[in-house]
Amino acid sequence: MLPYSGPGRLARRTFLGALAAGSGLAAAQQTPPSQEPLAARLPRAMALPGGADMAYGQPSPHEAAVQRSVSHVSGFAGWRTPLQHQRGIITPSGLHFAVHHNGMPDIDPDRHELRLHGLVDKPLRFDVARLMRYPMVSRVHFLECAGNSAANALSPTALDQTLGEIAGEVSCSEWTGVPLAYLLNEAGLKDSAQWVLAEGADGGSHSRSLPLKALLEHGLVALFQNGERLRPSQGYPMRLFMPGWEGNVNIKWLHRLEVTDAPAYTKDESGMYTQVLADGRIERFAFHMDVKSVITHPSGRQTMPEPHGFYEIGGLAWSGYGRIARVDVSVDGGRTWAAAQLHGPVLDRAFTRFTLPWKWNGRRADLMSRASDEHGRTQPLRSEWKRRYAMHSFNHYNAVQAWRVQADGRVENVYA
Amino acid sequence: MLPYSGPGRLARRTFLGALAAGSGLAAAQQTPPSQEPLAARLPRAMALPGGADMAYGQPSPHEAAVQRSVSHVSGFAGWRTPLQHQRGIITPSGLHFAVHHNGMPDIDPDRHELRLHGLVDKPLRFDVARLMRYPMVSRVHFLECAGNSAANALSPTALDQTLGEIAGEVSCSEWTGVPLAYLLNEAGLKDSAQWVLAEGADGGSHSRSLPLKALLEHGLVALFQNGERLRPSQGYPMRLFMPGWEGNVNIKWLHRLEVTDAPAYTKDESGMYTQVLADGRIERFAFHMDVKSVITHPSGRQTMPEPHGFYEIGGLAWSGYGRIARVDVSVDGGRTWAAAQLHGPVLDRAFTRFTLPWKWNGRRADLMSRASDEHGRTQPLRSEWKRRYAMHSFNHYNAVQAWRVQADGRVENVYA
Repeated sequence: MLPYSGPGRLARRTFLGALAAGSGLAAAQQTPPSQEPLAARLPRAMALPGGADMAYGQPSPHEAAVQRSVSHVSGFAGWRTPLQHQRGIITPSGLHFAVHHNGMPDIDPDRHELRLHGLVDKPLRFDVARLMRYPMVSRVHFLECAGNSAANALSPTALDQTLGEIAGEVSCSEWTGVPLAYLLNEAGLKDSAQWVLAEGADGGSHSRSLPLKALLEHGLVALFQNGERLRPSQGYPMRLFMPGWEGNVNIKWLHRLEVTDAPAYTKDESGMYTQVLADGRIERFAFHMDVKSVITHPSGRQTMPEPHGFYEIGGLAWSGYGRIARVDVSVDGGRTWAAAQLHGPVLDRAFTRFTLPWKWNGRRADLMSRASDEHGRTQPLRSEWKRRYAMHSFNHYNAVQAWRVQADGRVENVYA
Repeated sequence: MLPYSGPGRLARRTFLGALAAGSGLAAAQQTPPSQEPLAARLPRAMALPGGADMAYGQPSPHEAAVQRSVSHVSGFAGWRTPLQHQRGIITPSGLHFAVHHNGMPDIDPDRHELRLHGLVDKPLRFDVARLMRYPMVSRVHFLECAGNSAANALSPTALDQTLGEIAGEVSCSEWTGVPLAYLLNEAGLKDSAQWVLAEGADGGSHSRSLPLKALLEHGLVALFQNGERLRPSQGYPMRLFMPGWEGNVNIKWLHRLEVTDAPAYTKDESGMYTQVLADGRIERFAFHMDVKSVITHPSGRQTMPEPHGFYEIGGLAWSGYGRIARVDVSVDGGRTWAAAQLHGPVLDRAFTRFTLPWKWNGRRADLMSRASDEHGRTQPLRSEWKRRYAMHSFNHYNAVQAWRVQADGRVENVYA
């Protein structure tokens, strides 16, 4: 629908026209009818009785390579979503990213309690059975680690990695939980209540302070993800969920909420998730993840199946501030841009899928995507992002991601 | 927001007011502060380093009972979604229902091809790699077996089963695939083309005829479900997907599409999925699944945790014709009805979640839900449905589901 200028001008109609003409794209192989005997035409599976299904289904063994990649950095384990294999906006729970500061606790849900105390009229305890009786809401939201894409921020040269390895600490699910406002109002808030300290029941006692007002408006105690109870990797039996906010405040294995009049300046917020600006000042309590996008196909370490022809460029965009309003794509390293098609439903603080048809002319091409949200926020270039932050800062990196398609079809991470 | 009359009049405000007052609902346990030493307050998991996560995540072992239930009827295996455990609208792929006529074939995706032939200008073959290069679309849609809820249609007395056992042959996913129109147009349709025979590569060579016009408008060759490649249980490496149509036409392990001028009257459509009306006439090619709803909680074989008090009634509604427009709920066996709250996004031919707060007075109560779609279609009562069809008919059963809450808290399937 949308015209595209760059190395190869293309509209969707042209794309499909080319398909129909059997040219350009890898057209389907044409078969003269009736040349083969019936037995040769039938797939082998049709001659056999099928095997057994199972009570809880699993992916095909042929897809075993589609896994989370993991890296361990000073005790942390970061499990990354292989976004290059995802289509649509829902990340399967088995591939949802996770960053564990101290491994993954095994919690018996029948012995777990959430305590709500501090500046409240009545301190309260909630076990799982009790929380299950409260009204719940379900919302599709992305979740992103503050440190996602850190290597792109820190490494002086672009690392030759897959999209998942580079930027896979972001995923999107349907989360279901109890609005925190119900629990806080039930406890009754003192006049001096301003902040809430949330703590996880993990060996690292991960904890963060969050402003009460935002929790009352958006916070959930999430109990379900993609229709089933939370996975252990996501905080089973319950986690805090704050749509659009950096991953680490969405406290997994949530066991305690303490209402306070000021931030607690826990180790996880006074040091780790504080960001130093280029001029030496710091950004603390910078909760929102900013607008960002990545092209999922083609992307790093993939190879174009044919040396030229028609391709669909596809990707994901999201913003911690609201809905995605547009995504522009360049295939010439940012000299010219074209508006990609956004696929609905375009949801608040959720992945939005974008696509743009592209005729590759077989020459080197630098692909980039630049998302903008409904508030007019847009992605910076890497050089702009680097100017804003200190050399060693890496959190909240949301600069434009560029992929170089080499003439031989290899796709590589580059800085544009 | 919505007033409700019946045994216990209730608005959401009242519900939450009762929570805040700590009365009625199972209010959270109040804890006097600082009575316990710190060590006693800390969950055991906080004293231990956590365990390892895994490359492809799994549910908690504590949730092992949340599985599909299976029944085998004359060679068929029906795996049913435990809908009573689902929240939100997305069914996790591991719990998506499946009905296999001849087991589950193991197909090597590198050797699988989709053949498109018959009344076309150019017969074509598509392997997986080739299909992956076409433009794809993603849509959240329910899928329901024509025979879902068959026991409610056939059994003279209501069986004491769970919701999943009764009506779990329906699920909802985000499906991603190539619009069939692209492939059909590429092959080029002859003037006489009117129908398409779709065949699966399973040992039962399951096959159905579908009208070409509808396939051109809505059909997908689905390759992904909930963000990852189709599960084997759902037709890996590819299936036909027709939003809102009975499950068995969504051919799994799709390997052949033959364009024809008339239906093929395959065994799967001339007998099995044909429905006999009360007057002896038959309904053949009745593709659309009609408007339907079920209360997921409370539901069959659950027990109310307290003998009276505040509860949230929650459920799922869907229609093969479009969007859900309203759901009415009764707690007095259909004498009075109240409009439930619909939770967005309300999507076309997808699960829609509804809820209604309820104050149970502790006496026997018959709960029912009745959905209506945007076209004004609404669910019949069981007696109305039975009058329309022959005694032995059971497909396309969409009558109102009733649950009886006994005074002792047991919840049972009843005919209302």
